[in-house]
Amino acid sequence: MKYCFGVDLGGTAVKMGVFREDGHLIDKWDIPTDRTNSGKSIPGDIAGSLLEHREKLGIPAGDLLGIGVGVPGQAWPDGTVDAENLGWVRFPLIAGIESASGLRTVADNDANAAAMGEYWQGVGRGFRSLVLVTLGTGVGGGIVLDGLSLPGAHMAGGEIGHVRVEPGETRVCACGGYGCLEQYASATGCARMAREALQNSHEPSALRGIEVLDARAVWDAAKAGDRLALGVADKFCRYLARGLATLAAIVDPELFVLGGGVSGAGELLTRMTAAHYKTLAFQFCKDTPIVTATLGNDAGIYGSAALALRTFRQRLN
Amino acid sequence: MKYCFGVDLGGTAVKMGVFREDGHLIDKWDIPTDRTNSGKSIPGDIAGSLLEHREKLGIPAGDLLGIGVGVPGQAWPDGTVDAENLGWVRFPLIAGIESASGLRTVADNDANAAAMGEYWQGVGRGFRSLVLVTLGTGVGGGIVLDGLSLPGAHMAGGEIGHVRVEPGETRVCACGGYGCLEQYASATGCARMAREALQNSHEPSALRGIEVLDARAVWDAAKAGDRLALGVADKFCRYLARGLATLAAIVDPELFVLGGGVSGAGELLTRMTAAHYKTLAFQFCKDTPIVTATLGNDAGIYGSAALALRTFRQRLN
Repeated sequence: MKYCFGVDLGGTAVKMGVFREDGHLIDKWDIPTDRTNSGKSIPGDIAGSLLEHREKLGIPAGDLLGIGVGVPGQAWPDGTVDAENLGWVRFPLIAGIESASGLRTVADNDANAAAMGEYWQGVGRGFRSLVLVTLGTGVGGGIVLDGLSLPGAHMAGGEIGHVRVEPGETRVCACGGYGCLEQYASATGCARMAREALQNSHEPSALRGIEVLDARAVWDAAKAGDRLALGVADKFCRYLARGLATLAAIVDPELFVLGGGVSGAGELLTRMTAAHYKTLAFQFCKDTPIVTATLGNDAGIYGSAALALRTFRQRLN
Repeated sequence: MKYCFGVDLGGTAVKMGVFREDGHLIDKWDIPTDRTNSGKSIPGDIAGSLLEHREKLGIPAGDLLGIGVGVPGQAWPDGTVDAENLGWVRFPLIAGIESASGLRTVADNDANAAAMGEYWQGVGRGFRSLVLVTLGTGVGGGIVLDGLSLPGAHMAGGEIGHVRVEPGETRVCACGGYGCLEQYASATGCARMAREALQNSHEPSALRGIEVLDARAVWDAAKAGDRLALGVADKFCRYLARGLATLAAIVDPELFVLGGGVSGAGELLTRMTAAHYKTLAFQFCKDTPIVTATLGNDAGIYGSAALALRTFRQRLN
């Protein structure tokens, strides 16, 4: 049995896991992300922590295939990484981890890694292709086709949050564009649409005067039957369905997986989204299942471990 | 040197070519498509014509790697084909050609094949990925990533013509949807938009009273500086750019290739489209080149030959 490491590098914590090549997670933990000194100590911190756990777990060095790392930004083919919230521009992450660990290392964008995780050991297991759409503060995404993620020529593959779903939008998105999916089908977009709905009507709603009007409050109220909240949730799902229908006519995956915080809304979210999707999708793709992710915050370490396995071994189980 | 056959099966003619494995086209010809008897004689016609040319060219049977066929519909993994304009539903095309020719055969959708042709020996040569958008009576498309086309789980991969670019559209598309790219950025869409522009204004235009108001007339007038025609061309390019920007945020290819009849408009088309694209594309993809296809009607035979090479040999030159 061989082993590999999966790493999910975030802005505040680095999540790490040790996996058997059959996909079994043996141990997981995390360490704080040291952002001082432009994050220069991060590669050494990661390598040190992994080697420490290798020893603790009694895994022979020769049985370790390598390290996969999901990064919050662009992982370039030359091994460097751009990550805005770490202040990295072409930061030599791979070289740093490899020299500190003595292990071969490979990186991918964190959303792509999460998609790969769901594909390998999550809800996508057994499917040949999937698109993961993460509904968090923003909207991210990852595409997996026949076991390979789709990074794109400029590392923009799967940037589903920046597909324009509302050509008439006049508000600007964080990316500089207008009418991006992220402006509606994110936690932020959900809360904004709820504030607008409250301002634009006198309809009674449990959301009026609520202390924290966030996406969770909207979905909880919608589940309780609050009509105004249901209207906001419906709008959210309509935009999301536009994005999924677009994905279907381009990538045509076997499965859509919804992840990120808002996916906690569960069955109401998938049901309402699927209803809109059916009316919008290209004829052959109307029945593509839409499900919620199952690996939660571990998707990233699973996926980066799968990436390491695929890269440093020929066959992925 | 090994050889292979590339076939482009259309509704009125079957185009065929013999290729060397280095990409050199040795001979090409076409035969009429026999649509009588539900097209049952097509596999035998194709096989017979190919074998006849093999003999004429003096190619030893053992040096032929196989046959690739581009089909006007869905080529399923089990070797059957759906093609509306031939009346085929799960028609056993591969088995028919293989048994009549004694050669291994593989099929793909014709737009995917054309994309592969441009990738292999056309304008995309040397690029790692591209998306071909064919601007004809309708709008088709094919995606090639690292030498593989993207068929999709329901053979809808690259159905770029049915990406919705106008959510407010009330006219229905041939696919049953509303606001599809094909409704604007096709020859048909172009002519319709020109008719509407003429009806909705009193602006003088060379297009008024013209005998045949088709896409060619619009682009010719636009090139001659006709303001109304330029307005229609600009609208055409704006919608096309929306589609390309959507593709960029999902697939992020190295290159966009415009093919099909309207691509004959050439530099004016690519320049106007690129200008809109730059304002719409995701930040990292704004400079993706947009070029016109170079193989013309031969793209299909090139691409299906490339598919045969890739399938029946390990490495594609």
